[in-house]
Amino acid sequence: MKFSINKNTILEELTNVSRAISAKNIIPILNGIKFELGKEGLLLTASDSNLTIRSLIPRDKIESIESEGIIIITSKILLDIIRKMPTNIINFEVIDDFKIAIYSGNSESDNYRNYSLNCLNSMDYPEIDFDDSKNHINIKSSKLKEMINQTIFAISDQPSRPLLTGLNIKINGNCLECVATDSYRLAKKNINLEETYDDSVNIVVPGNNINELSKILSDDDSNVEIHIYPKKIMFKFKNLAFQSNLLNGEYPNTSNFIPTEFTHIVTANLKNLYDTIDGAALLTLGKEKNIVKMDLSNNELIVSSYSSETGKAENKLTVKRNVTEPVSISYSAKYMLEALNSFNEEEVVLFMNTDSKPIVIKNIKDESLIQLILPIKTY
Amino acid sequence: MKFSINKNTILEELTNVSRAISAKNIIPILNGIKFELGKEGLLLTASDSNLTIRSLIPRDKIESIESEGIIIITSKILLDIIRKMPTNIINFEVIDDFKIAIYSGNSESDNYRNYSLNCLNSMDYPEIDFDDSKNHINIKSSKLKEMINQTIFAISDQPSRPLLTGLNIKINGNCLECVATDSYRLAKKNINLEETYDDSVNIVVPGNNINELSKILSDDDSNVEIHIYPKKIMFKFKNLAFQSNLLNGEYPNTSNFIPTEFTHIVTANLKNLYDTIDGAALLTLGKEKNIVKMDLSNNELIVSSYSSETGKAENKLTVKRNVTEPVSISYSAKYMLEALNSFNEEEVVLFMNTDSKPIVIKNIKDESLIQLILPIKTY
Repeated sequence: MKFSINKNTILEELTNVSRAISAKNIIPILNGIKFELGKEGLLLTASDSNLTIRSLIPRDKIESIESEGIIIITSKILLDIIRKMPTNIINFEVIDDFKIAIYSGNSESDNYRNYSLNCLNSMDYPEIDFDDSKNHINIKSSKLKEMINQTIFAISDQPSRPLLTGLNIKINGNCLECVATDSYRLAKKNINLEETYDDSVNIVVPGNNINELSKILSDDDSNVEIHIYPKKIMFKFKNLAFQSNLLNGEYPNTSNFIPTEFTHIVTANLKNLYDTIDGAALLTLGKEKNIVKMDLSNNELIVSSYSSETGKAENKLTVKRNVTEPVSISYSAKYMLEALNSFNEEEVVLFMNTDSKPIVIKNIKDESLIQLILPIKTY
Repeated sequence: MKFSINKNTILEELTNVSRAISAKNIIPILNGIKFELGKEGLLLTASDSNLTIRSLIPRDKIESIESEGIIIITSKILLDIIRKMPTNIINFEVIDDFKIAIYSGNSESDNYRNYSLNCLNSMDYPEIDFDDSKNHINIKSSKLKEMINQTIFAISDQPSRPLLTGLNIKINGNCLECVATDSYRLAKKNINLEETYDDSVNIVVPGNNINELSKILSDDDSNVEIHIYPKKIMFKFKNLAFQSNLLNGEYPNTSNFIPTEFTHIVTANLKNLYDTIDGAALLTLGKEKNIVKMDLSNNELIVSSYSSETGKAENKLTVKRNVTEPVSISYSAKYMLEALNSFNEEEVVLFMNTDSKPIVIKNIKDESLIQLILPIKTY
C-alpha cells in the first residue's frame, strides 16, 4: 500500500472513525484503525466490537495511489502525527506488513517529517458486515441529531439496570419515537417520517454509542439512512457507516407513566425560568441531591434552596397560571435544568398536580417533545 | 453595611482577590473575602496567609452607599451568584453581623434574586499591613508580565528543594534580574530599570504566587510599584495590592552555571525548530522522560525519537551553522519546547559544546533572555 492524501481529508475521517476506539478495550487488534486501499478508495474502519465506524474516502479524493493493500495502524498518536504535519500532502507507505512510513513532502525539503509506525496483522482484524438491510428509514441529519440531543441526557448511568442506559427507538408506521428514562425522569420525542416503515420496531441502542453518533451527525439537511437488524442498527450518512449493537431485553412501556390530567398549568419564559432555577441551585452545588423547592402563588413562582453551611436563595419569577391556588413542589434542579435545556422556544409550560405526581414540561405549539420529572418529597 | 454596585465592577475585583484563596487552606476565616466599606470606598481582601490580595473599589465607582461596615463572606459560590445575577446593579445588605443579603433590583420586579449568605466575624480576620516601603521600583506591567512568563516555567516542582520552587529576583543598581531553575534547566531574564535602586536585592518569591500575579497583570504600559521588605514583597498596580511572603534561604549563585564558550552555534527559524522537536516528541508522550536526540551534520538538523511500542520519528530541518562537523545531543523535548516558547523572535540560536555541557538558547539581537538546558546522556 502506498498513497498520498490531503492532510485535512484524512484527518477528518480518522477523527470520525476513531470515536469507535475505546480506552477500555482489551483486544489488541481493536486498538488499531484498519486502512484498506482498494477499488472504491480508502476504507478506514475502527471498532470496539460494540460500536463500529467505517469511512470511505473515494479514489478521486486521494491525491495519488501507487499500490493498494491493507494494514492495521495501532498508534494512539496517529491523529497527532497527522495534525502536526507541516505539509498539505501526506504520504503513507507500507514498508513491510508490520510497519508503515508516514512522511511529509520529500526528504530533500528544508522541513521534513518521517515517522515509521508499528502495525498489526490485518488477518487478525474481525470481519464486520456492512450490508444494507432489506428496507431502511430516511431522516434528515439535523432532525435526527436534535431528537437525540433532546432525549439522550435522560438515560441512566446505573449499570444495575442496563436497558435504561440505552435509548429506546420505536417505529410505528411513519412515526419515529425516542424515549430515555432513568426512572426518575423521562424524555420523549417523536417525529413523522416521510415514508411508512413496514415493520414495527422497538429497540434499545447503547447510550454511549448514540452520544458518539450525535457528535458526528451534521446540522444540515443531508440524508441519514437507518438500517435495523435483529441484533444491530446501522446509520449510513455521507461517506460513513456507523454500526452499533443493540441492548437485549424489553424496554419498559413508558406510555402509562405520563399523566394526562393536571390541576396546575404554568407558562413561563424559558430563559428566565432556567436562570431562576439555575441561580437558586447554586446553594446545592456539590451536594448529592440538588433539591430546590418551587412555590407558586398567584402569578408568582419562587424557587428556593437552603444550605445550613452557606445560606439560602429565594428567586422569584412572574409567570402565567391557570389557577391562583398555591402549590409547592420540590425537585432536582439538575434534572429540571437539563429538561428545560432541550427546548428552544421562547416559552415552556409546566403541567403539575400535587407534589407526588410527575411534572410534565412541554412546548406550547409543538407537543412532539415531552419532558417528565418526578418530584422529590421533602419533610 | 448596605450598598449597591455595578455587577461587572464587583465581579472583576472579586475575581482578582479570590486568587489568594487556597483550596488547601485549613483556617476557616481565610476561606472568606473581607468586605470593608469605608471612607475611601470598598476594600476587598483575600489571603491564604502566604499570599494576600487587596482591591479598592473607590466610592465614585459604587452606585450608592447607605451605610459603611465590615463583614467576611465565606461562600465559595459568591462569584457564581454575582455572575448569574440578571441585573446590572446588585445590592449588598448586612442583616446582622453574620448574615449578608445579596439581591437584584427590587422585590417587585418580575425576575428577582435574593440570597442570604452566612458570614464570619470580621474581628477574627488577621490584621495585614499594606504600608508602602521606604523606596520602591517602578516597572511597566507588560514588561513585568513578560519577564515572569519567560522564566517561571523553569522553577522546580519538587518540595525537597524548596528554594528552587521560587523565582529568584535580584536588583543591582538599575538592573532587575529574574532567575528560575530546577537544576536541570535554567531561565534568566534581565531588564534595565529607569531609576537606580539604592539597596541591592536578592530574594526568592514562591512560584505559585508569582504565577497568580502574572495572571492579574495587564498587558499594557500601566505602572507597577514593587515594594520589598525583609520578609515579603508587595506589587501595587491599578487599584490592587498583591503581597507575597518570601522563601527563606540563599538562592544558589547561578551565574557560573552558564558556559560562555561554545564549539557549535546553530541558528534556526524558531517556529520550524519548535514544530520539528514537537513532532518528534509525539513518540515520547506518556513516558516519564521525553528524550529526543538531535543530530547535526552540515546544515541538517535531525530530531529523532524511538519507542519500541510505537515506532520511530525522524524529523529534519535545514539550519545555519558555524561549523560542518557532526554533533549529537539528547535532551528533554518538554524542557526544550518550554525554553523555545519563551522567545518571540523569528530566529533563535542554540549554543552547544559536547553532549555533556549545557545547551544555551538565546535570541540573536537581544541577549537579555537566556535559556539553558542540560543534555541527557544516552547510551
